[in-house]
Amino acid sequence: MKALVQVTLKPDVLDPQGKAIQRASASLGYQAVRSVRQGKIFEIDLDVDDEGLARAILDEFCQKLLANPVMEDYEIVLEEDGDTA
Amino acid sequence: MKALVQVTLKPDVLDPQGKAIQRASASLGYQAVRSVRQGKIFEIDLDVDDEGLARAILDEFCQKLLANPVMEDYEIVLEEDGDTA
Amino acid sequence: MKALVQVTLKPDVLDPQGKAIQRASASLGYQAVRSVRQGKIFEIDLDVDDEGLARAILDEFCQKLLANPVMEDYEIVLEEDGDTA
Amino acid sequence: MKALVQVTLKPDVLDPQGKAIQRASASLGYQAVRSVRQGKIFEIDLDVDDEGLARAILDEFCQKLLANPVMEDYEIVLEEDGDTA
Repeated sequence: MKALVQVTLKPDVLDPQGKAIQRASASLGYQAVRSVRQGKIFEIDLDVDDEGLARAILDEFCQKLLANPVMEDYEIVLEEDGDTA
Repeated sequence: MKALVQVTLKPDVLDPQGKAIQRASASLGYQAVRSVRQGKIFEIDLDVDDEGLARAILDEFCQKLLANPVMEDYEIVLEEDGDTA
Repeated sequence: MKALVQVTLKPDVLDPQGKAIQRASASLGYQAVRSVRQGKIFEIDLDVDDEGLARAILDEFCQKLLANPVMEDYEIVLEEDGDTA
Repeated sequence: MKALVQVTLKPDVLDPQGKAIQRASASLGYQAVRSVRQGKIFEIDLDVDDEGLARAILDEFCQKLLANPVMEDYEIVLEEDGDTA
């Protein structure tokens, strides 16, 4: 089973890199870019068929290895693979 | 209009950080994690209503500021906002 | 004048990516790695000769674009260039 | 023994994030910033006293977990700790 995990800074945490990109966009002539927030994404291939189990593993995985729960949020998206997709 | 841009290493580019996370998962007892690939995600708020225009801006934006087209792929997902969402 | 700016998480901020690398090192047989903390580095080329001015610019630069002062520390190292180096 | 490992993109590899910061700096009024290159830094605490051994471990560590040797360079700086520092 494949999964996508998105880790983003909590809304109240300052994101200087996103801010830099937003400012850079203005210098390229893109006045239309109101804000940019940068995060991380993880594409994970799991040797697990059961959706509940996959979610439980990924949840612990996020809390221990992928995100800092104090300042980051994470979102897990499971993707079906195989013939039934 | 809000957009999500995912920037990931091309499949043939080595990803030492993803590899480190995959190895670390084994040390936590997660034998089920076959592979991990790390990428970047950008949440972008655009002052544009037209989907075609938004996509054109973001496409140029990706090529100039968000991704290195030689070694990274990017994917743009537009999200409706407003009352009709 | 060239400068090196190091941006690191404050000591009390959890660093899941550094932790993942430390765990991964154990799985490679490196029991000797006690801890790993990951940060960012910026190599900056400035069109400024005066060291005080360079430092003032970089300081503001760090606070506005390179670091999140709430959770990150930064250190500026100026490197002489030219014949006298 | 403590070590600092700097991982930077090879000079011929495009760095869109560094470029974004350089452009953003112009929008803040810093015309003096000629170029910015972004890299990663790792602060590593090793349970090893011998400098040669520390360097050998870190070298393998860089090649397997910290850097992508195809597109990144790395530099290892050992720092003495203890009473003699």
